[in-house]
This record gives sequence, C-alpha cells and structure tokens, in this order.
Amino acid sequence: MHQSPDPELLSLNTATVREKWSLRQMIEGCARHGIRGISPWRDKLAELGAKEAAKMMRSHGLTVTGLCRGGMFPATDRRGRQAAIEDNLRAIEDAAILEARCLVLVVGGIPPGSKDIAGAREQVRDGIGAVLDHARACGVPLAIEALHPMYAADRACVNTLAQANDLCNELGEGLGLAVDVYHVWWDPRLKAEIERAGDKRLLAFHICDWLVPTGDLLLDRGMMGDGVIDIPLIRSWVEAAGYRGFHEVEIFSANNWWRRDPDEVLAICRERHQSCC
Amino acid sequence: MHQSPDPELLSLNTATVREKWSLRQMIEGCARHGIRGISPWRDKLAELGAKEAAKMMRSHGLTVTGLCRGGMFPATDRRGRQAAIEDNLRAIEDAAILEARCLVLVVGGIPPGSKDIAGAREQVRDGIGAVLDHARACGVPLAIEALHPMYAADRACVNTLAQANDLCNELGEGLGLAVDVYHVWWDPRLKAEIERAGDKRLLAFHICDWLVPTGDLLLDRGMMGDGVIDIPLIRSWVEAAGYRGFHEVEIFSANNWWRRDPDEVLAICRERHQSCC
Repeated sequence: MHQSPDPELLSLNTATVREKWSLRQMIEGCARHGIRGISPWRDKLAELGAKEAAKMMRSHGLTVTGLCRGGMFPATDRRGRQAAIEDNLRAIEDAAILEARCLVLVVGGIPPGSKDIAGAREQVRDGIGAVLDHARACGVPLAIEALHPMYAADRACVNTLAQANDLCNELGEGLGLAVDVYHVWWDPRLKAEIERAGDKRLLAFHICDWLVPTGDLLLDRGMMGDGVIDIPLIRSWVEAAGYRGFHEVEIFSANNWWRRDPDEVLAICRERHQSCC
Repeated sequence: MHQSPDPELLSLNTATVREKWSLRQMIEGCARHGIRGISPWRDKLAELGAKEAAKMMRSHGLTVTGLCRGGMFPATDRRGRQAAIEDNLRAIEDAAILEARCLVLVVGGIPPGSKDIAGAREQVRDGIGAVLDHARACGVPLAIEALHPMYAADRACVNTLAQANDLCNELGEGLGLAVDVYHVWWDPRLKAEIERAGDKRLLAFHICDWLVPTGDLLLDRGMMGDGVIDIPLIRSWVEAAGYRGFHEVEIFSANNWWRRDPDEVLAICRERHQSCC
C-alpha cells in the first residue's frame, strides 16, 4: 500500500517553472499553493539578489531546500579552475544568506578538447576540497549531485552515488549528497549507496520521472507518475536511512511543463506528490 | 604514444551502414575495403538466411565477430517471456551456423506498464538461464552487452559491466561480455570490471564515440575520434586483460553516417581505427 508523503515536505525547484515566472512570482506561487519549500537557481536569484530573496522567502514561510548550483570545477587551465573556485565561494555566501539547507554541486564534465574523465574527476575532488573550508565556516553543507551518466561528458563526471560517497569519505565533514531520482533510478547499487550515505549525508531529495520514450537528453523530464521510476520505493530507502527533509520537484521540460501555466504545474505537482511519491 | 591497432582486427557491425546496403553489399564492401570481420544484425541476416550468409561470408574470408542480437527477455506475462526464450534459441542456432564468436544479448528493459527494474533484472537472469544450456550445446558463447543507463527503461536493464560480471558469476560457463565503449566509457569501475572479466569472458569489443553534444538518445553516435571517449585507453585495458579479438565498429547515426555513401564510411572506419583507436 502506498502511503502518501507529508504534503508539507513538497518543495519547488525553480527550474520547474523557470520559463514563465520570475522568482517573485515563484515565491508567491508557492505560498498560494501551500508549497513550503523552494530551491532557487542562481539566475533567478540574481533578479532579486540574495538578501532581498531571503527576506521575501522568509516572509512567505518558505524553507530554502537548496541553492542550485555550485560546481563546474574542471577547466582547461589553472585560470579556469580558479574562476570556478571563486564562483563557488560566492555561491556558498549566497546559500548562507538564504539559510539554504545545502548548496547543490553539479560538479562539471570533461574540459573542452580533453578525453580524460579520470583527470576531470580529480579536478572535481580538488575543486571541492578548495571550497569546503569556506562552506564549513559559513555553515553551508555542500551536496554533490550525482548526474545521470548521459551527462558525464558535459555536465557532471560524478555519475553514481558510490562516487559521491567516496568523495565524502575522502574529503570529510560538510559534504553530502543530493539524490535526484532522475539521475540514479537505474543504478543497481542505489539502495546500498543510500544506506551507506545515511541520514547525515542525505542533504536533498529531488523528484521527477523518466519518460519512455525520452525525446531529449536534457529537457524532457516527466512529472512524477508519468514515467517508470518507482519513486515511493526510493523514498522508502531514503527515509529508512533517516532522511526527513523535503521532496524537491525539478522538471526540465521544454515541450510540455515549461509551456503550461505555472499555476497548473504547481497544482499538479501537489497532486502527484500525494498520489505518486 | 599511440600505437595503432592491427588493421586486421577491424570488424563491421552492419548497423553502421544499415540504411543503404543489403547484407550482400556489406559482405562485398568489407572484402573490398580489407575489413576482415563482420557482425550482422538479424534483420539483415534474414535477407539471405543464415546458411547462405555463412557461405558468402566464409567465401569472402570474413570472421563473424558476433550476431546481433538475442536478449529482450522481460515481458509482462509468461507467454511473452516464453516467446522471448524461443526467439533466443533460434538466434543461437543462427549464430552456430555463422560460427559467430558470440551471440550478443541486449537483455531488454522494463515491461510496459511496470516500474519494477529489479524484477526485470530477475527476468533477465532467468531468461539467460533458460537458454544457456542450448548455447553451450551449440558452442555459441552468449555475450551480455551492458547498455548505457539511458537505455535502462526500454532496451537493457543491465547497465554496468559489474552487473554483467555478476550474472556470469551466477550462471557460469558459456556466458561473457560484449564491451561497447559507447555504453561503458563513463563508468568509474570500468577498468576494474574489465580486469575482473578477464580474457575468457571478454567476447566482443565494440567501438564508436560519444559526441558532445549528443542530439538523440539512440541515433547520434559518433565515428571514432569525433567524441570524448579515450578508445586507446580502453583498448589497452581489454588487451591487458588478455583480449585479442576484433574491434567492431557499431555506429547508429541517422543524420550523419547513415546518410553517407557506405564506401566512404568504411574507408573512414579503417582510417580512424588506425588513428584514433
């Protein structure tokens, strides 16, 4: 029997309605629909600035379940890597202002012209290492998001929770995981690595669905219930590991959800969160 | 320094030129271009029938590096699963007639309407188990092809070499792996699992490239050298494990390679095999 999740745990990742709404509209929309969490992307955050956004979110009773995103560490040369580190330091400060539960790290892929994925992974480790102290000092946990292997080349060369857990082992306190069902649902080691992560490392839980067929590698994610991911099963695993945080809806969907009225999208998110998660 | 592979080890998977050539043309094309191996898909094989095709391939001095493909085991009901088993038994017999080095298994995804990927994986194990004795009796090794996780839902729920190796451990003799760089290049455990497989299990090595960006989940594979896969590195790993078999080019490419003159494609395959593999 499916037991519906607590509706208070629904959170809106701003990517889901990014095409039609400003951050202000998103904050007001969440309040209107009884959605208690929000996770802004930095492009949207820039509209208001972190301080103004933080104030507005708090006044609407919203918890900031994450800031998207830091990361993108690998680069062709030292200057590029340094620029990435500085950008991550700024993101950490914004996350602190927002009192975000975590800064989500999309770690970056292989630098242009390179075929060295192992080297890119080392650059990711070193990049996280270079900003982790500042994150600790700011009280901002860093959440490594393992991205689907189809993004290994150009977005993130951390592609399994096993890799992310290994990085946490290596780099220590202040580092954890963002588990997005879209990226990890296929992984035969998923349950084991969620257990291994445990409560302390599980910083975010992102939901959407994998459509069959999937028409685009990036912009064809499905609404919960429309695809093949057994979201209640994966939720049961993160809860068994002790996770009590939000369930953040993040849907990139150029031809469907991004075209709809965001009020309709938010209403359907609420309904599907109850019926399909 | 890159050491070019033996040009005699190049093999043509018929998918690479499937849009413009018949099997007869492919066989003659391989002979014309000095390509010594061929791996037919069953739709092409049906044009000539296995016996006639085998005769023609032998008379042109071609080694059949694999037959594509068996598998597709999971189904909604028992009847569907039985039909898949019977189809695999026929494929094994065709592979025996062709004296193919292996029958490649694309194991199948999640049955329509299901979200049970663990159950689908059990069906795969049981399906292989149901045909393995016949394969052994026919002298046809079965090569499990781990497919990229982006195909987990609809094509193959075996998505890592670790899973494939585990299946070999469980089911025993007569079973091995087809390593396709396109599917596994991203895997942080790739080297370790190739070592674990070893000479005896490494039945086929497929090559092409991962393009950045990739425009289509299925039909946008790249020619060796045009993408981000370090093919020489992966070849060095399979060779270190003892593999001495062919390097089979398998490119699905609706908007580029499938549109070109197949004689041009084969010439470029030969050249890139030497320069980029």
